[in-house]
Amino acid sequence: MASFLVDGLPARSVEAGDRGLMYGDGVFRTIVVRKGRALNWGRQFRLLASDCGRIGLACPPAALLLEEIGRVAPGDAVAKVIVTRGVSGRGYAFGEEAAPTRIVAAFPAPVNLPEVARDGVRVRRCALALAVQPRLAGVKSLNRLENILARAEWCDPVIREGLLADGEGRLVEATASNVFLGLDGKLVTPVLSRCGVAGAQRERVLDLARAASIPSEVRDVSFVELHRADEVFLTNSVIGLWPVAACGERRWEPGPMARRLHRLIEDDDANGS
Amino acid sequence: MASFLVDGLPARSVEAGDRGLMYGDGVFRTIVVRKGRALNWGRQFRLLASDCGRIGLACPPAALLLEEIGRVAPGDAVAKVIVTRGVSGRGYAFGEEAAPTRIVAAFPAPVNLPEVARDGVRVRRCALALAVQPRLAGVKSLNRLENILARAEWCDPVIREGLLADGEGRLVEATASNVFLGLDGKLVTPVLSRCGVAGAQRERVLDLARAASIPSEVRDVSFVELHRADEVFLTNSVIGLWPVAACGERRWEPGPMARRLHRLIEDDDANGS
Repeated sequence: MASFLVDGLPARSVEAGDRGLMYGDGVFRTIVVRKGRALNWGRQFRLLASDCGRIGLACPPAALLLEEIGRVAPGDAVAKVIVTRGVSGRGYAFGEEAAPTRIVAAFPAPVNLPEVARDGVRVRRCALALAVQPRLAGVKSLNRLENILARAEWCDPVIREGLLADGEGRLVEATASNVFLGLDGKLVTPVLSRCGVAGAQRERVLDLARAASIPSEVRDVSFVELHRADEVFLTNSVIGLWPVAACGERRWEPGPMARRLHRLIEDDDANGS
Repeated sequence: MASFLVDGLPARSVEAGDRGLMYGDGVFRTIVVRKGRALNWGRQFRLLASDCGRIGLACPPAALLLEEIGRVAPGDAVAKVIVTRGVSGRGYAFGEEAAPTRIVAAFPAPVNLPEVARDGVRVRRCALALAVQPRLAGVKSLNRLENILARAEWCDPVIREGLLADGEGRLVEATASNVFLGLDGKLVTPVLSRCGVAGAQRERVLDLARAASIPSEVRDVSFVELHRADEVFLTNSVIGLWPVAACGERRWEPGPMARRLHRLIEDDDANGS
């Protein structure tokens, strides 16, 4: 069901001694491919390269990754690019010898239901609090156990996402998406300097808002503000944009900001940014 | 140089879609094997099983793991047991379908230099502060990027370890070992309820101290106390016990507690606990 290129060659497996497996020593990005075109690629690559830099990895060239995405996902798909620190001996130290491993994978294209964009989704607040680690904040690293434990808190399929706070109760993100509020006429999203993952879709929404002169703020956000918000929505590259219809007892209607930004995202995808 | 059994079969690789690689979704333990015998096995297995439970994984049976360690490491070696959540589709959620992957690896036996036990090692204090995550504290999970970034802070081979604090400046552990102080006639080691990895050697040292009526305390420890300590030592299963000779300007002589506990560890290994 998934197909993989490992260092450019079709493969079903990765060396058992790879540091990606041993220690989660790597980073990744998830990219939607439509008719063979990697959507939002500029931001995806920029973030991947920045994440590589944050943990001291050499990032593969953009052209090479694009070529491999095209090879493994020629039509509609979800592609995943993983860069690990490669194989080394036992131990956390790594020398010059460790050459990065590059994995490009293709998964089936997402099925985006029109009623979700229309009616929005139910979410819950997760009990797990994200740990504060500025050295890794924003980075989409292979260390994702917090997200997994948070996602395992519920199995009711009606609940589509879980909101995550840090240890001091600030809203940070959802388990696999970023969160935006429409609040007092502004677009507001949590700053990710302590924890959380900076999604490429989040960056795009902020860029599109700026270009459309929608006032926006990236700052600390409390759950009190979430409840006060006029509208709430989630973004990631695969779901696109999901209005939030409910969190616990609080209900929202899909709002004008979500509708407008959803349209701007679709235009941007169609025009191939 | 390393050899691997994956789910009991000799292999050089692991499926590319394994969640251990995708998300660091798994746990591990590192075990010294001497003449085919897994040292400190009781505690190693108990901690592995406990870690599996902490992240909701089924732990393989002890007898199966021991048999596989014996097969992959028949003489003297360092064995590593990894349990991941196995292969699943894309996304953090996992269903009943994900069957754990069991990896048993053998690496060359460590070379323990007698002068290290005699003279001790130099360590430094790392700049990286460990994030507080009670849900994963103590667990030896595959999410080890903090340790890797901390270990990458220095390359001077004279410095053998780096001490790690949490965000509030408490001493927690070293990058790949646990830390003990001899302080006011007591054995003191940091509590690991917020962050850190609970090593099997740490558990054994605490058990041996108890059995030998050495008064011991597991509690918050400050760097002021580290500087005040009469002696300091590090433990992990591979190094055994390393007295700390220096951290920055502070110097210590290898102390009576380190010597006594080192001997007790060696006796325990010889007697096969």
